[in-house]
Amino acid sequence: MKRGLIVQKYGGSSVADVVKIQSVAKRVMKARADGYDVVVVVSALGDTTDDLISLALQITDSPADRELDMLISTGEQVSCALLAMAIHELGGDAISFTGAQVGIMTDNSFTKARIIDINARRIEEALKKRKIVIVAGFQGVDLNNNITTLGRGGSNLTAVALAKVLNAEICEMNTDVEGVFTADPRIVKDARKINRISYEEMFELASLGAQVLQPRSIEFAMKFSIPIHVRSSYSNKKGTIISKEVRAMEDIVVSGVTINKNEAKVTICDVPDKPGIAAKIFREIARQDINVDMIVQNVSRTGATDVSFTVPSGDLIKTIKTAKDISKMIGAGEITFDKDIAKISVVGIGMRSHSGIAAKMFEALAENGINIGMISTSEIKISCVVNAKHGQEAVRAIHSKFNLAKKGKRWTK
Amino acid sequence: MKRGLIVQKYGGSSVADVVKIQSVAKRVMKARADGYDVVVVVSALGDTTDDLISLALQITDSPADRELDMLISTGEQVSCALLAMAIHELGGDAISFTGAQVGIMTDNSFTKARIIDINARRIEEALKKRKIVIVAGFQGVDLNNNITTLGRGGSNLTAVALAKVLNAEICEMNTDVEGVFTADPRIVKDARKINRISYEEMFELASLGAQVLQPRSIEFAMKFSIPIHVRSSYSNKKGTIISKEVRAMEDIVVSGVTINKNEAKVTICDVPDKPGIAAKIFREIARQDINVDMIVQNVSRTGATDVSFTVPSGDLIKTIKTAKDISKMIGAGEITFDKDIAKISVVGIGMRSHSGIAAKMFEALAENGINIGMISTSEIKISCVVNAKHGQEAVRAIHSKFNLAKKGKRWTK
Repeated sequence: MKRGLIVQKYGGSSVADVVKIQSVAKRVMKARADGYDVVVVVSALGDTTDDLISLALQITDSPADRELDMLISTGEQVSCALLAMAIHELGGDAISFTGAQVGIMTDNSFTKARIIDINARRIEEALKKRKIVIVAGFQGVDLNNNITTLGRGGSNLTAVALAKVLNAEICEMNTDVEGVFTADPRIVKDARKINRISYEEMFELASLGAQVLQPRSIEFAMKFSIPIHVRSSYSNKKGTIISKEVRAMEDIVVSGVTINKNEAKVTICDVPDKPGIAAKIFREIARQDINVDMIVQNVSRTGATDVSFTVPSGDLIKTIKTAKDISKMIGAGEITFDKDIAKISVVGIGMRSHSGIAAKMFEALAENGINIGMISTSEIKISCVVNAKHGQEAVRAIHSKFNLAKKGKRWTK
Repeated sequence: MKRGLIVQKYGGSSVADVVKIQSVAKRVMKARADGYDVVVVVSALGDTTDDLISLALQITDSPADRELDMLISTGEQVSCALLAMAIHELGGDAISFTGAQVGIMTDNSFTKARIIDINARRIEEALKKRKIVIVAGFQGVDLNNNITTLGRGGSNLTAVALAKVLNAEICEMNTDVEGVFTADPRIVKDARKINRISYEEMFELASLGAQVLQPRSIEFAMKFSIPIHVRSSYSNKKGTIISKEVRAMEDIVVSGVTINKNEAKVTICDVPDKPGIAAKIFREIARQDINVDMIVQNVSRTGATDVSFTVPSGDLIKTIKTAKDISKMIGAGEITFDKDIAKISVVGIGMRSHSGIAAKMFEALAENGINIGMISTSEIKISCVVNAKHGQEAVRAIHSKFNLAKKGKRWTK
């Protein structure tokens, strides 16, 4: 049966060694035998990227970002060449390309570049010749032909972007989990695989620390309505389809519970309570390329207020330094921080039309004696910061309170 | 003192680990402090290339050449990024480039591509900004932007080619030996470092198995009169300058003795003795991309003759297959081969004007009871094939016969 185009992405753990690469080659050949045109996006072998980074760190504490991208982009180049060879060995006709070769143009924000354009001509030519096309994930080039990388999880972004420009039927994310779950199965024993979920929910889940897909890829898939199939590289079971919201989804109020322990909380104390001051703070932080997540400003008492926000733990040192500079600049007080936090969130489209979710979540925490540090909400999620040591307990309490283990009986108010 | 441009090449053993990369960074910074503009060409770290190849061989016995180049070209990309970081750490301003990025255009003979053009604009721009430019050796791109590699020792070729297009003052080959010697010091204890040697002699020495520089790089340097300085990465001693022939060289009849054990001898027996038959044989072998070295055709007796030739050992299997096909085609007899051979050669410009060198060489072998299998001569070299087990003994006998250990007293007839 002749089908359309499938983009298959395989992460680092799926191509960690020669045997795994050979098994990926078989899966690719199967998709081809099923009638698909196939474009494969691969990450670097296993821990290659980390190994390369630690090599760099043996030389310098602060490698230049441009050179770091030059270095780590080799990882994906290795795996795509090896996968091409493995497919040849099975009698398939495959050709591998770097990001530069297939015209993945990005801006020049080294180590976290954004794709600005893809010139798919080279891939289309190869597909026309009935070749299986293998593309190095995670990388591109800027307008001056410098090699860039797209940040952690960037291979997913490559896959989604290629699915878009090539007008793929589906973008398959082959990973080491079987799909998206109502909570992390390592924390919650009876967590359940979700068959179908909307981009919006998945976006929130991803932002909140579900490690399956990075938010940017989902944002991109959502923008161009590319269906994504998250599935296991090691089985033929169906995983989770991420797609546009469909009516059936609306019955489900809460889709999942997530935990993110990779953030830290920073507080600028005694900030003068004047118009424009928050803008000043966060413009300066943005200028340092730090992504702020939650922001809470306490009610002013004496003309001064405390501003707290969370940032990725990796940016904490830079953030503290920046916050100190800002504090001097605006005449605020000292800087405090807390690394031992966990952000717990519930996500669900149904929230939009159901009230009381927040109360239910807070109850679950209160019943377990867990104190809430910060709260923030959006249309389809509620997040609470708690002490890191209570993180897992909080996830289990909420998962159980919302009855998420039962299919089709997920909590409705 | 302001000087011109120096191209420095560092081989794999010179950048085998972080400590060695840091030491190369210091040497680069010294050249800069001495007033040079610096372009550095680096090979892959230590055994990286071999490691990558064995990874490929775990997947397939015969990896596609295009994919092999995609794979192994990552080695140089890693080392040039790391070297840039090491130079930054010393306060230098360095930028690294792949072969593709600096426009090293080659033909599409994957794994042994030839450079057809270099667009040096990008390097010149960086030099104008006073940057130290680091280029990944050994690699380029073909006209379709496929990554190619230049074959073993290709980094030297990159260095010489860049020295040419950038009009460098000198091209420095930093290696793990102190220069070019009258014979391999591991074989001949009193072998002596040569201070100055002509391209022609060096070309023959390289072709004959002196491992310091590949013949193609010397050919290229000779063509464009680029002086080459072969020296040790680990000391500041002067090495050997390879340059145009100068008058002083003419007194020296024999410059050095070499041994090459990487060839095998193939014989096509009972070849019909007709005009054009040799052309037919070697055209067919060339078509298979096999480099033939020595060729000997025995005198015809009964209308048929034996044709023997040597090829790189790595090409032996392919050669035997090809020779069998040829034999069928032209009505010749069986194919015999010998892997256990060593080619011993003496090289020297002075030979042109001195006779009796060959006789002296044969005497040295005869005195040591070593039988000669094949002989071939050129203007400035004489080569004999002997049984591999007598190879080292032959080198020592000849080195001593020509009195090469004594400076300025090298053998004249």
